[in-house]
Amino acid sequence: MVSSKTETGEARREVVVSAPINIALIKYWGKRDEARMVPLNDSVSLTIDTLCAKTKIRVGGSVEADSVQINGTDYDMTSQKRFWKCFAEARKILHERNGEEADEECFEVVSKTNFPVAAGLASSAAGFAAIAFALGKIYDFSEEEVARLARMGSGSACRSVFDGLVHWKAGENDDTSVEKVADAWPELRAIILVTSEKEKAVGSSTGMRFTVETSELLKYRVSHVVPERVKSLIEAYRNRDFQKLGEIIMADSNQLHAVCLDTKPPLRYMNDASWHIVSIVEAFNATTFRAAYSFDAGSNACIFIQQKDVAVFLATAAKYAQFSEDLKLSMPEARIVEAQNLLNVEPKDCSISNVIVSAVGRGPTVIHDLDAGDC
Amino acid sequence: MVSSKTETGEARREVVVSAPINIALIKYWGKRDEARMVPLNDSVSLTIDTLCAKTKIRVGGSVEADSVQINGTDYDMTSQKRFWKCFAEARKILHERNGEEADEECFEVVSKTNFPVAAGLASSAAGFAAIAFALGKIYDFSEEEVARLARMGSGSACRSVFDGLVHWKAGENDDTSVEKVADAWPELRAIILVTSEKEKAVGSSTGMRFTVETSELLKYRVSHVVPERVKSLIEAYRNRDFQKLGEIIMADSNQLHAVCLDTKPPLRYMNDASWHIVSIVEAFNATTFRAAYSFDAGSNACIFIQQKDVAVFLATAAKYAQFSEDLKLSMPEARIVEAQNLLNVEPKDCSISNVIVSAVGRGPTVIHDLDAGDC
Repeated sequence: MVSSKTETGEARREVVVSAPINIALIKYWGKRDEARMVPLNDSVSLTIDTLCAKTKIRVGGSVEADSVQINGTDYDMTSQKRFWKCFAEARKILHERNGEEADEECFEVVSKTNFPVAAGLASSAAGFAAIAFALGKIYDFSEEEVARLARMGSGSACRSVFDGLVHWKAGENDDTSVEKVADAWPELRAIILVTSEKEKAVGSSTGMRFTVETSELLKYRVSHVVPERVKSLIEAYRNRDFQKLGEIIMADSNQLHAVCLDTKPPLRYMNDASWHIVSIVEAFNATTFRAAYSFDAGSNACIFIQQKDVAVFLATAAKYAQFSEDLKLSMPEARIVEAQNLLNVEPKDCSISNVIVSAVGRGPTVIHDLDAGDC
Repeated sequence: MVSSKTETGEARREVVVSAPINIALIKYWGKRDEARMVPLNDSVSLTIDTLCAKTKIRVGGSVEADSVQINGTDYDMTSQKRFWKCFAEARKILHERNGEEADEECFEVVSKTNFPVAAGLASSAAGFAAIAFALGKIYDFSEEEVARLARMGSGSACRSVFDGLVHWKAGENDDTSVEKVADAWPELRAIILVTSEKEKAVGSSTGMRFTVETSELLKYRVSHVVPERVKSLIEAYRNRDFQKLGEIIMADSNQLHAVCLDTKPPLRYMNDASWHIVSIVEAFNATTFRAAYSFDAGSNACIFIQQKDVAVFLATAAKYAQFSEDLKLSMPEARIVEAQNLLNVEPKDCSISNVIVSAVGRGPTVIHDLDAGDC
């Protein structure tokens, strides 16, 4: 019997959940097995608590076909391979548990994100984590099953189904797994600087495939660099060693973009605005290490920082990245960092369209209303 | 007897030479021995015939102190370590040949370049190649000695003392060497697109030291990528296989910038304008492979291309990189490449301040007049 049916046989079940996006501190770039969504190397991430997908899933009863609606737009299931793979994995688990009856199970997904989809903000990670987490609640899937469902939709989504510091292990053969390796660090914050410039970038699935096929440096990254880096990063995080953590975060972000550049054709996700933000962070850190940048496959910056330094960073960034007056209104008042560190950084309009300050490491939760304000 | 003396013992000798800059097809980035200027990996280059340093050297007689004047500016010898190292090496060779008398030998250098110094156009390579080549003419130094003198001033300068395709071998221990490995390819051209934007870049000597100290990917590049690539490139060049040559050139340029990005702090030499030129080349090559870009430690592009394709490339670049009207006046008339390949490339002002089209592989020559027009 499919567990979506109540004891009276009534086929109806729904749940509403919220799942955050996540940012990798050690980056995922490259699959060992595209069909099974198995990565070439371990990655480590934190969720960004305030950027989430809220998702209602209904199953059974009147739900006679799979459907997905995101931010009011209906998606065509026949062309959406990612959703199909995720749903197929759910039906496979149900089939193993309940037999053929499960093959008829259908899922109705209504999802809302509190940020633009495909704006380089890992929306698919939040979306598939929410779907997987919701199905897990409905069917009482194990953590491993939930992570697997999320992964089938979008590899990095499996890192959004846990709270705290999350470690996605590449594993060997087919045994990739994901787990929480440390509690949330309450003092830690992420500042997302959204650059409004829309780059015509190659999507990350396609991009990483190109890198796997053509970059020689990626092999060395996977075999020699990442394993050591993952250990050091987890240790620094557990020891609350912010500087060491930050230095590893920046080194790994830079190495992601290095292997992208070593790809044929070269992949370029950081633009002049991204690099200006790098300069600001370097100058900001000149006397005391207080901030670490990380860039995913896009030009937006994620700055990891401790709560005590958020205001001074924002004030400094507002000056040197020339935030608009509108944007400045939402900033806390603070002295900017000492000018001598920033003498070589000329203020420049980076067209930062939005700034989001968020706690990190919350993980997904069951909520009660798809239209509630916050995550 | 120092060979700068005539048979009558008169101490006077002068020579005027011209030496071109060179562009590496396989890039030099990182020294194994800073003092002896020994590189970590092999590099391969071609000279750019029309960009040169013309240099007059006088020795002996009334020349009682080392002096260097470049483009009318006198350089202070006490602070110019590069000149000092080059001159010291020359005196060392003379000492071995002639004994202590040679220690007093002084060199008067007057040099003129036909392009701005330190504009990211490898001026030091041309300058030191000219000094070394001139001293070689005066003292009858061997090719190996000339290359060594040039290298002491600026590593890549040793590649400008030969014509044809030049291979600088890293060697082992102290045995680095440089040689011509193929004749000039008469049909081959280099188009230099000078971006006027002055980047505050880290100089290449400092930059490569940072990379050696901090990049893990560089190790793999040096040990595993470059050796194979050098072989393939020389083979493609000898076979006149333009596509294979061009693909290796672009891959190695991209990998140079990848290891720069993998450096702490990350080094970034290519800017938005450079990347726009990359897009133009990719689109230009979409149906037929006809052009290959290469970027040194700077934002200027060097496009390797065959003479038959120069006009169509320039016309295409003039449109999509928005050359100024002044610049267009010097362009040959040509149809631009088929529009469908460039549909995704939006014209963009790259602030190209100069375009230089040059034959390649000429090497240095003795000339008769420092003020003659061409190289």
